[in-house]
Amino acid sequence: MRFGTTLSVTLTGSSHGTSVGAVIEGLPSGAPVDLDYVQSELDRRSPSHRKLATMRKEPDRLLVRSGIENGRATGEPIVTLVENVDVRRAPYDELVDVPRPGHADYPARVRWGSSLDLSGGGIFSGRMTVGLVIAGAIVHDLLRNKGVGTVAFTRSIGPENWEDPATEVTIEDLRQQSRANEVGCPDPNAALRMQTAIEEARRNGDSLGGIVEVRVEGVPPGVGEPFFDPVESVLSHAYFSIPAVKGVEFGAGFQAARMRGSEHNDPFYIERGEVRTRSNRAGGILGGLTTGMPIVARLAVKPTSSIAKEQDSVSLSRREPVRLVVKGRHDPCIVPRAVPVVENFTSFVVADFMARGGYL
Amino acid sequence: MRFGTTLSVTLTGSSHGTSVGAVIEGLPSGAPVDLDYVQSELDRRSPSHRKLATMRKEPDRLLVRSGIENGRATGEPIVTLVENVDVRRAPYDELVDVPRPGHADYPARVRWGSSLDLSGGGIFSGRMTVGLVIAGAIVHDLLRNKGVGTVAFTRSIGPENWEDPATEVTIEDLRQQSRANEVGCPDPNAALRMQTAIEEARRNGDSLGGIVEVRVEGVPPGVGEPFFDPVESVLSHAYFSIPAVKGVEFGAGFQAARMRGSEHNDPFYIERGEVRTRSNRAGGILGGLTTGMPIVARLAVKPTSSIAKEQDSVSLSRREPVRLVVKGRHDPCIVPRAVPVVENFTSFVVADFMARGGYL
Amino acid sequence: MRFGTTLSVTLTGSSHGTSVGAVIEGLPSGAPVDLDYVQSELDRRSPSHRKLATMRKEPDRLLVRSGIENGRATGEPIVTLVENVDVRRAPYDELVDVPRPGHADYPARVRWGSSLDLSGGGIFSGRMTVGLVIAGAIVHDLLRNKGVGTVAFTRSIGPENWEDPATEVTIEDLRQQSRANEVGCPDPNAALRMQTAIEEARRNGDSLGGIVEVRVEGVPPGVGEPFFDPVESVLSHAYFSIPAVKGVEFGAGFQAARMRGSEHNDPFYIERGEVRTRSNRAGGILGGLTTGMPIVARLAVKPTSSIAKEQDSVSLSRREPVRLVVKGRHDPCIVPRAVPVVENFTSFVVADFMARGGYL
Amino acid sequence: MRFGTTLSVTLTGSSHGTSVGAVIEGLPSGAPVDLDYVQSELDRRSPSHRKLATMRKEPDRLLVRSGIENGRATGEPIVTLVENVDVRRAPYDELVDVPRPGHADYPARVRWGSSLDLSGGGIFSGRMTVGLVIAGAIVHDLLRNKGVGTVAFTRSIGPENWEDPATEVTIEDLRQQSRANEVGCPDPNAALRMQTAIEEARRNGDSLGGIVEVRVEGVPPGVGEPFFDPVESVLSHAYFSIPAVKGVEFGAGFQAARMRGSEHNDPFYIERGEVRTRSNRAGGILGGLTTGMPIVARLAVKPTSSIAKEQDSVSLSRREPVRLVVKGRHDPCIVPRAVPVVENFTSFVVADFMARGGYL
Repeated sequence: MRFGTTLSVTLTGSSHGTSVGAVIEGLPSGAPVDLDYVQSELDRRSPSHRKLATMRKEPDRLLVRSGIENGRATGEPIVTLVENVDVRRAPYDELVDVPRPGHADYPARVRWGSSLDLSGGGIFSGRMTVGLVIAGAIVHDLLRNKGVGTVAFTRSIGPENWEDPATEVTIEDLRQQSRANEVGCPDPNAALRMQTAIEEARRNGDSLGGIVEVRVEGVPPGVGEPFFDPVESVLSHAYFSIPAVKGVEFGAGFQAARMRGSEHNDPFYIERGEVRTRSNRAGGILGGLTTGMPIVARLAVKPTSSIAKEQDSVSLSRREPVRLVVKGRHDPCIVPRAVPVVENFTSFVVADFMARGGYL
Repeated sequence: MRFGTTLSVTLTGSSHGTSVGAVIEGLPSGAPVDLDYVQSELDRRSPSHRKLATMRKEPDRLLVRSGIENGRATGEPIVTLVENVDVRRAPYDELVDVPRPGHADYPARVRWGSSLDLSGGGIFSGRMTVGLVIAGAIVHDLLRNKGVGTVAFTRSIGPENWEDPATEVTIEDLRQQSRANEVGCPDPNAALRMQTAIEEARRNGDSLGGIVEVRVEGVPPGVGEPFFDPVESVLSHAYFSIPAVKGVEFGAGFQAARMRGSEHNDPFYIERGEVRTRSNRAGGILGGLTTGMPIVARLAVKPTSSIAKEQDSVSLSRREPVRLVVKGRHDPCIVPRAVPVVENFTSFVVADFMARGGYL
Repeated sequence: MRFGTTLSVTLTGSSHGTSVGAVIEGLPSGAPVDLDYVQSELDRRSPSHRKLATMRKEPDRLLVRSGIENGRATGEPIVTLVENVDVRRAPYDELVDVPRPGHADYPARVRWGSSLDLSGGGIFSGRMTVGLVIAGAIVHDLLRNKGVGTVAFTRSIGPENWEDPATEVTIEDLRQQSRANEVGCPDPNAALRMQTAIEEARRNGDSLGGIVEVRVEGVPPGVGEPFFDPVESVLSHAYFSIPAVKGVEFGAGFQAARMRGSEHNDPFYIERGEVRTRSNRAGGILGGLTTGMPIVARLAVKPTSSIAKEQDSVSLSRREPVRLVVKGRHDPCIVPRAVPVVENFTSFVVADFMARGGYL
Repeated sequence: MRFGTTLSVTLTGSSHGTSVGAVIEGLPSGAPVDLDYVQSELDRRSPSHRKLATMRKEPDRLLVRSGIENGRATGEPIVTLVENVDVRRAPYDELVDVPRPGHADYPARVRWGSSLDLSGGGIFSGRMTVGLVIAGAIVHDLLRNKGVGTVAFTRSIGPENWEDPATEVTIEDLRQQSRANEVGCPDPNAALRMQTAIEEARRNGDSLGGIVEVRVEGVPPGVGEPFFDPVESVLSHAYFSIPAVKGVEFGAGFQAARMRGSEHNDPFYIERGEVRTRSNRAGGILGGLTTGMPIVARLAVKPTSSIAKEQDSVSLSRREPVRLVVKGRHDPCIVPRAVPVVENFTSFVVADFMARGGYL
């Protein structure tokens, strides 16, 4: 339940226990921490103010039990948590014997047996990502002081895609625009189309996947460890820990597989004494090390597996087919709520890389 | 330079030092090791018998210095190496000041300065993957005894793609067919088209990327660690350590982002008392745990960055533009040689997962 | 701030922050946890009911925030803490510039500078050992179910020593007897002499050291890892983390250095089919592995460094001599309160060893 | 088989395999390495030139396979080994069923069964310490350039003890004097008495224990990690990995347990602007951090367990008593050969601490 090297986060609690939270270690003593910002990022992840999200409503008030005093890290482990308030176990009882298609139920039963509490997803629940948001939001000020900024946004939902505009957009603009609507897409028109698609899926008792994109600006060149901790390795390790992520690519990503070297290589040039590249098909990473150009990654998020439609499953005890209708409260599309998780967890990983390299 | 938990591999040496190799720890005492198989996999990775590969020719004879006696692991660390024979440093001298576009040169210079020996790529060289092949091939027999088989093959090169045939193909067939031609594609016709594409790229002084696919059969359900070591996280961590990989997806992967839940969820059924799924869009992994269905992953490999065409670069010392023609010996497409690396390193990661879970 | 492998404990908080506590990871889901026992061990460590201890009085009520429900571990990290109530910062202000002899002040100032809050010892305070008691007491029931019992007791205080009686005493007797008096010595007469010695030291504004002994029964033979985690290595690593410990020995320990092999070797014999040794000069450990005989260790605890007598120190800022009288509230002898810390932390380390070896 | 954090050493091979060695990771690229010095320390550990040692004679020629070129570390893992030449398996066959008193045989059989090869001690052999000598000797020049010097010497053998002379002796003198005789004691007269004691023990088919002392000068104040890697914790962890060590103390050590605080605290004073202490009962360590005074540790080494005298053992298969006469080639006292092991391994641990703290 622990991630990171110089900086680390340990996730605590579970979806339907008394709380979820995170223990963050390694923040230098005296580092500034803006707890209001952390709370605002928790609010952004929370379904409470969302029309398109699960009906489970949690206030998610941040509690800090150790490690922060007067807006500064003390150097000791930072113990944080939010309480679970709106816990209802009933809807999950049938699932002990009948695994939901597309969900962790079946392998989790094989591994831990029928006594495992999978109410609300247990440790597989998206609710565990509360700790990832906290960990990343806690290092936000520290990174900003070093000139590093991160933004994640919704690139596509189901068939609805947003293409970059012709003119370049700054990270700061992207941060503002993606916070201006509920789906987290910087473009209001595309956001509207995406919202419509989600509503339609919900009406049909179905769900949608999508793509989250993340960019990080201001990381100095040379950060990373060729074997075995290149920047792509550690970021993808982090990303695939987020429930429902099934693909990760950097820069040109899978498009690179169809390119020629002469198309793909980013030509170097000098701008105000700095080495830069004219394109950024490398996604800011060469040989596993940062190049100084923005880090760019995209995450494929699968459609929510808990859908209202009847599906084929089996009874694990009787070894026979069962038709299953999943109850409980679920998001018809998890992508918008994944956006703050990806943004903050990316910040955390980048902060750990910079701490390892002595940049923090 | 170390990867793994219960089983681990540490890479040693460098591209243009005296040797490259691997130290493998954690293999249970008495585990069978077929050194002939390890040598045959090294031969498969080697450019020596390839028409389409770099002109650097290395015999790559496996030497074992500790940890294997009479075809069995002794329980001590296994120290292996192959010597570097065909080392030529001259072609790389210019590159100390002029970084190759698309290559690790620039960030590596920033990180370690101009004294770093990047001849032949140094620790960034594809030659470091010799150790990954050794580590994975060493656990091949151990896995086979547990009913686990791995195959990697070339799914596409540049624009040339191979689509699965209508009838299902066994892992064993895929292993044989993909070893039957130089590009590592199971289908001879597709292989021929890919070979032609590579030859054309070489004639043009250019290079091509492609996609490697890997499948693992026989892994029991329930293997993996939800936070923070899901199977996808650890495999992708491993894959992005292989030079030139820019994207990784599992099962439906990026296609999942365009699907509805009712399309994407794999329905369960019972076959001879075993729980199985009718489709495998999950790629054998749900909630970060194996499902018992085949693990399926795809890796996007970018085109070789060292190309013969003249490119735009800069002089790091003079901070001015330079037109660069890369010399040295390079593969016009690294995909075919990445196939045995992906296959064997996948086996190693799977073996580590199984050892952690007490299955070995 | 983290110790352990399969089981781990992370210490949180600090002496004069809002709380101290521990995060315990790796306890198997469903493991029994007796929180009343944990509280009773915290009470034993606490100065509140002690006549011979510091005047700082803390209620030390155990709070559990995650990981235990209905007397069972849930498998998630266990987040525990006790609040700091009786915090007074004033007495420590002078010490920012004038380090106390025998205390961590000086090297801590060099390392972290004058802004480090060393009130009440900060992270160097004996109060941090609250977390070690919690971690060990939490695994008490789990170990007892496996037939493993641990006891620590006071072997000597200053010049007052307790010699083993001629007849063997059971672990259970030792546990009861050492809890029957305030100094933690199994023999009431020796305990009285030790108590008198402590009172005399306090009257003189001085302090005393002593020796804590610990025994563990019921650990099966073969537990441990020759290189580099022999049982002695990991236990001593743990013990030297307890403030004021300056020596650790196992079995005959330093006496072994004066023996001949024929005196020191423990002869084997068979008792009811079990292999045992007639003596136990090995302290239950050979080649770093347990032998099945009781593990026996002794810890040398130095006299409390904070004494009322005037001492020679220096002003760090003015680089000149200063005569120092240490204020604040301190134990004249820390040995009695170290006893529950050693006992419980030993249990924790043994539990980790057994978990690593698959015995839990 | 791995020790260290920023710097690490992995031991390879085994006593009666084809080689023993060490893989050292983390040495900064460009660090000076004097391979002649490493060889000379291997010679010092070797029994080849010793009259009082085992008859097993090994040339112990250092071979370096990776990581050092032209007297400098390249930054890659350093792979070293020495071949096992004088291997004789026969004498150990009986021991598969009859464990030697005082030796790892019994718990090792329980753990790994009768197939484990314990010839010559296997991985429990003192021969594994070859790798510890290599690892420490490799960092010798790096430490010397930082003003850090280490010496270990024989403090006592059986009843024969050496007391410090009235006048202070420099580390450099101690290094020379302890290398001037075979027992490793700085005083020639004491060395003669120790030598006589060893010879007498050998004539009687018996063995002797003793105490090794080690000192490190030049480590800056503030090195170490309070929880859980204080300097004493990590050094003792290392020391108890050396076969036959049963006790470790720092500074006044077990004597501190009998002292009053006013006797034990080292008074501070200023010397040429530097903070120093008049005595060094802390052994150079307060609160787990270095003070800038010399680090002083003592290790209790038990008498060699393999003795020629007949001893009581048991047959593991038949569960009945057996009278055992141990054959094979053994040292009557391991202390003199432990001296270079302790000295070099101490250097390695100190180098790792300094690397962690950014001092290297």
